Amino acid sequence: MDTELLAKLAAPSDTKIVLSVVDGLGGLPDPRTHRSELETANMPHLDRLVTESVCGLTIPVDYGVTPGSGPGHMALFGYDPLHHEVGRGVLEALGIDFDLQRSDVAARGNFCTLDAKGKITDRRAGRIPTTLTAELCQQLSQIELPGVKLLVEPVREHRFILVLRGEGLEEGLAQTDPEREGVEPLLVQPTSEKSKTTADFVNQFVKQARDVLSGQAQANGVLLRGFAKYPDLPSMPEVTKMRAGAFAVYPMYRGLAKLAGMTVSPGGGTQESQLEALKSRWDDFDFFFYHFKAADAAAEDGDFRAKVLALEEYDKLIPKLRELGADVLMVAGDHSTPSQFAAHSWHPVPFLLHSKLGTVDRVEQFTEAACLTGALGTFPARHALSLAMANAGRLMKYGG
Amino acid sequence: MDTELLAKLAAPSDTKIVLSVVDGLGGLPDPRTHRSELETANMPHLDRLVTESVCGLTIPVDYGVTPGSGPGHMALFGYDPLHHEVGRGVLEALGIDFDLQRSDVAARGNFCTLDAKGKITDRRAGRIPTTLTAELCQQLSQIELPGVKLLVEPVREHRFILVLRGEGLEEGLAQTDPEREGVEPLLVQPTSEKSKTTADFVNQFVKQARDVLSGQAQANGVLLRGFAKYPDLPSMPEVTKMRAGAFAVYPMYRGLAKLAGMTVSPGGGTQESQLEALKSRWDDFDFFFYHFKAADAAAEDGDFRAKVLALEEYDKLIPKLRELGADVLMVAGDHSTPSQFAAHSWHPVPFLLHSKLGTVDRVEQFTEAACLTGALGTFPARHALSLAMANAGRLMKYGG
Repeated sequence: MDTELLAKLAAPSDTKIVLSVVDGLGGLPDPRTHRSELETANMPHLDRLVTESVCGLTIPVDYGVTPGSGPGHMALFGYDPLHHEVGRGVLEALGIDFDLQRSDVAARGNFCTLDAKGKITDRRAGRIPTTLTAELCQQLSQIELPGVKLLVEPVREHRFILVLRGEGLEEGLAQTDPEREGVEPLLVQPTSEKSKTTADFVNQFVKQARDVLSGQAQANGVLLRGFAKYPDLPSMPEVTKMRAGAFAVYPMYRGLAKLAGMTVSPGGGTQESQLEALKSRWDDFDFFFYHFKAADAAAEDGDFRAKVLALEEYDKLIPKLRELGADVLMVAGDHSTPSQFAAHSWHPVPFLLHSKLGTVDRVEQFTEAACLTGALGTFPARHALSLAMANAGRLMKYGG
Repeated sequence: MDTELLAKLAAPSDTKIVLSVVDGLGGLPDPRTHRSELETANMPHLDRLVTESVCGLTIPVDYGVTPGSGPGHMALFGYDPLHHEVGRGVLEALGIDFDLQRSDVAARGNFCTLDAKGKITDRRAGRIPTTLTAELCQQLSQIELPGVKLLVEPVREHRFILVLRGEGLEEGLAQTDPEREGVEPLLVQPTSEKSKTTADFVNQFVKQARDVLSGQAQANGVLLRGFAKYPDLPSMPEVTKMRAGAFAVYPMYRGLAKLAGMTVSPGGGTQESQLEALKSRWDDFDFFFYHFKAADAAAEDGDFRAKVLALEEYDKLIPKLRELGADVLMVAGDHSTPSQFAAHSWHPVPFLLHSKLGTVDRVEQFTEAACLTGALGTFPARHALSLAMANAGRLMKYGG
């Protein structure tokens, strides 16, 4: 259901919905055992929950599309991720808990190595340590341009963000990274007339950055890409008439929830402490987003065993999630991350919806293969929210 | 398939298609027996038919969307119900067999109770009996306004329809029902400049209605909503190149068929007599819509047992439906109506397609759970018509 229809059908109610996202939930069978991470893990609580739920598989974005964290979460928050894009610069800023303003333009930056002629010899500046990057960002932050404020913050290794703050800034800018070595960085080109002033600011920054960094051996240049402003999303709480709270250890996921208009609880701590925080705010919200990271982190490292252990850790949280007594509890993934790929993938993601209505299907295990036979079938992830709202008695009838 | 593509691919043929709609077909398991209405009913003829058919589940409108009768039927007639909305006023008019003209604007009305200050004390006027409503409608029909004809017809209890007939009338009007008591009814506001004249007519009617009703204790005011004109739908017979006939006991379903451009057989009588009527017109049409009401009526009353009995009654009609010898016979539902909800629901609806081509799947029971494993999968209801046409040899190849 698109957000316009959702806004039309959403009705206030006292019911509560919990969306528990297991990052990188889906996987693929280990070629030796023919069993996926979910099929290998010992998950007694999920095994029990699944028999009292309806299941399916979600397609985060589209057939064959491997989603980043942004679109994967946006879909579960009810947005069509193809129509509501979150720019790279913005995602990078969210990832370091940067307090991005609506009028800011953010870009993702790399330190790079330039030769005497200004040609790129290493697009990643030998992956300089984060500590050096932090120091250099400090220096670049001193650059002053009339009419705009420049903020430069380290991310990790050679990566940083550049944020331009001021009035009338526009995101329509092409990248300066030529994506190959042996050539000079590109000048920023505005993609439309109205971003011309912003392009001038960026080009002046890049030029002055070269001066500031001239004493550096490796990191004597910068490459910029993913210029983006805060996306103009319809507010999920307004659309759904639900007060929504987000509970996540890592900044990226709190940031995505903030983009959707959710109230974001302080981050950090452990999965357990975030779940405690959620519980303590039970009366304050109707919708709760709870993020679990470790499964994706293990799978991104290509560590099948670690992902299995992470899933088993998640399983231990299930009794606490159930104790909350939500009208609807969803266990979902933002995308699959098969350990063999050591990367995100396009594969449909197991999904479970437990409702006080008590509807069940015949799925008995929370695995990729079993969820395929679930009553919900294989469906676009962006419909999970409307299914949950229907089950929570929060949607009116359509048509007379 | 959208109507544009359908129109492009549809080819004339001698084949015949029967769409048998069981209103409110789908249900949910009884918590005590764990069996749904369809799983409980004894339906030997459907059991037989299903083994000679292919099955699936239809999604009437969208995930989580509970459809009214309008969108539920429109989808089975091949329309995307999100793009072809049927206004409330029109539906209400169809429901009482009112002969709505293309230029009419129809609204749904409530008699209400107003206090001495004109504030609403009961939005439903104590649910006055239909006989009194009929009498009051008779009185309101005497109201004369220059430039427009006013028609007021009773529906049931406190409900009636107001139809404005004339030239240049527009449907863009906000409701006068404030949806709460203790305040005055709203004046009709035009939602665009061009519906200003129509708004004036309605406000004059409401004012005069107050005078006419001034002697009434309970029903001394009116509330209006759902202003709508006859929707501008592509004609289903033209799009599909099929002469289409509709056979239904109740006016609402004949009305919906009429909106789609079908030829509507006289209503009333019994399910059997409507089926006889269909049989007698076998040579006159290529497509036959046959509506069966009792399952929905029982489920809307929350009566599980009555729905089971209704389904068993329907089962007895199956041999007669099969005797017709259609090239394609579909058994479908416009939406689910679980008896436990005593209301329509969003759940996918069992669907069966029997074709002279003889293709079958492994489904052996016409139930929600069994249809989930059918060859047709879970699919939008608006594709049922194109599947039927394909099976009836009525669709050309797409592309060279």
